[in-house]
Amino acid sequence: MECHGGNIYKLSRQRGISEYDVIDFSSSINPLGTPESVIDEINRFSKHLYNYPDPEAMQLTETLAEHLSINPDSIICGNGSTELIYLIVRAFKPKTTLIQAPTFSEYERACSLLNSSIRYFPLTEQNGFLLNIDVYINWMKGSEISFICNPNNPTGRLIRRDDMLRIADGARWAKCYLIVDEAFMDFCADETLVRDVINNPYLIVLRSMTKFYALAGIRLGYAIFPLNVINKIKEYKEPWTVNTLAQRAGISAINDRTYIEESLKIMVQEKEFLESEFIRLAIDYIPSEANYYLLRLKKAMEVIQFLKEKGIMVRDCSNFRGLDNTYIRISVKTNELNTLLIKELSNIIK
Amino acid sequence: MECHGGNIYKLSRQRGISEYDVIDFSSSINPLGTPESVIDEINRFSKHLYNYPDPEAMQLTETLAEHLSINPDSIICGNGSTELIYLIVRAFKPKTTLIQAPTFSEYERACSLLNSSIRYFPLTEQNGFLLNIDVYINWMKGSEISFICNPNNPTGRLIRRDDMLRIADGARWAKCYLIVDEAFMDFCADETLVRDVINNPYLIVLRSMTKFYALAGIRLGYAIFPLNVINKIKEYKEPWTVNTLAQRAGISAINDRTYIEESLKIMVQEKEFLESEFIRLAIDYIPSEANYYLLRLKKAMEVIQFLKEKGIMVRDCSNFRGLDNTYIRISVKTNELNTLLIKELSNIIK
Repeated sequence: MECHGGNIYKLSRQRGISEYDVIDFSSSINPLGTPESVIDEINRFSKHLYNYPDPEAMQLTETLAEHLSINPDSIICGNGSTELIYLIVRAFKPKTTLIQAPTFSEYERACSLLNSSIRYFPLTEQNGFLLNIDVYINWMKGSEISFICNPNNPTGRLIRRDDMLRIADGARWAKCYLIVDEAFMDFCADETLVRDVINNPYLIVLRSMTKFYALAGIRLGYAIFPLNVINKIKEYKEPWTVNTLAQRAGISAINDRTYIEESLKIMVQEKEFLESEFIRLAIDYIPSEANYYLLRLKKAMEVIQFLKEKGIMVRDCSNFRGLDNTYIRISVKTNELNTLLIKELSNIIK
Repeated sequence: MECHGGNIYKLSRQRGISEYDVIDFSSSINPLGTPESVIDEINRFSKHLYNYPDPEAMQLTETLAEHLSINPDSIICGNGSTELIYLIVRAFKPKTTLIQAPTFSEYERACSLLNSSIRYFPLTEQNGFLLNIDVYINWMKGSEISFICNPNNPTGRLIRRDDMLRIADGARWAKCYLIVDEAFMDFCADETLVRDVINNPYLIVLRSMTKFYALAGIRLGYAIFPLNVINKIKEYKEPWTVNTLAQRAGISAINDRTYIEESLKIMVQEKEFLESEFIRLAIDYIPSEANYYLLRLKKAMEVIQFLKEKGIMVRDCSNFRGLDNTYIRISVKTNELNTLLIKELSNIIK
């Protein structure tokens, strides 16, 4: 079984088509595609691969710091935020970890490799996959680290900043490092905690440039650490993980205001469109503040197979801890592709 | 102190110049620069960063396997061979490790992070930094893993294939995994062990595409594993570490026969030139089969400082375990730059 969405290569090999002809609703990437400004920057710097990348990614770090109004000394860039998840776990070597279920699977994998004892905090459909904050804070007591993906993957549910700050205070009280993965935060209103890390020695924020800026192929993420822990993390950091083109891509992407505005606009439009279609077709969906929807379908496995035969990939969610084989996740794409998906969905569901 | 050569960013910031104006003799990269064919391929694929990279790097792996006449199932690609060094150590968790001194420092760092007890096998200038094979085999008994960089960094000394096979047999006898890092092997005669891995369950070969193909900025390496250990290694592999452009660059690079032939030709010419100049200037150098030389200079630290003021970086080797502050390493570059270096060296040495 696939662990993640987005493996267009496997399906294209199976079907004997070009990987770029697969219609990929399984990974949740900005449908506008990689910004033109980023592609131009990469093409300008592709002649500079002779040299090692800047191991400190100084220019990118300073650009991020300015953009986010935070201290550059609190930032570490990574080969995607995935590198940083594994790095944090290796540095902390937590004996006990608290993770929600369902959520992104790499937290569990990183902790399991270090034999951390993992406690799963259940999020249920009956409760709309929402977190009971007081109970969660109690569970953090006795855990050394805790991961919260916000908005959560695959549900799209968001915990607002005020509530997250309450959880972060709880983490401090429980002496449990709280890692908030904001991989999809750019898509919803600015509820980020990046500027709150400075006030809480137990709060770490992870960010990805993969999804919003459509940079999945070049690998770029970063994390913001309290100054009391960043040196310990750096002790474990492997050198040169962030390639030169990723560093340039990152600098270029966050300066592209037009792309950012257009992305937010298309997202509002297409989410309205999809939600109205879900309602029309009586498809159960979880209200999402991210760029994807978790759908509950009686015959999810049949739907996945039917769509695959049309060259359309959606995310089979049956391998998410806490979900079963009645869930799929689809990303929000362009109107043309969303319309196509809805058409095929209505064909199979009828 | 810098841990590695090639940090053009730090010097350029100190001197207020563009990083690409630094003349970098400190990292050992092919002076022909990144192949044009690779730059073209990257520019063609820069519009395909929307998708995640193929997590299995299948097309690259198959191209490598064909090029090397080995089984594709024995290959894992990495974000530079550095990722693979750390990955191997994490998978094996060796209680005891055998490492030469001097050698590339990341083996030691990777093992230290896991609290492995490290035994250092001394290579001395009196013995021309050559390895005593019988003694080394004895030392492997009692070690769980052992790293040999061949040709060695920073000395450039090569252990010929016949001798390496004897060491690999010794590793099997000692039940000690032998990791042969062939990062610079493309530069010298084909003494590689890549096709011998299949015959020895204790032999692992690491390869880098950084140096010969001048791909330092995009990060690409690979390793060949015996089939009895590769699944254990894959258990620990982090997903998507090899970006899409690195995968394309690798495929394109190994198919560029013209570049490969020209690189070998310029290397022969320029090594002859440099060696004759070292002799003329009475500079002590270690005979090298790689694209760099370890030089012994009485006032090495002064020389480094003098060259730095001219915008020329060389590798200060004083932080190599087993060397002192009388050693520098320089890479072989184009005739124009080698001539410039020799001119400046003769100015300061006189």
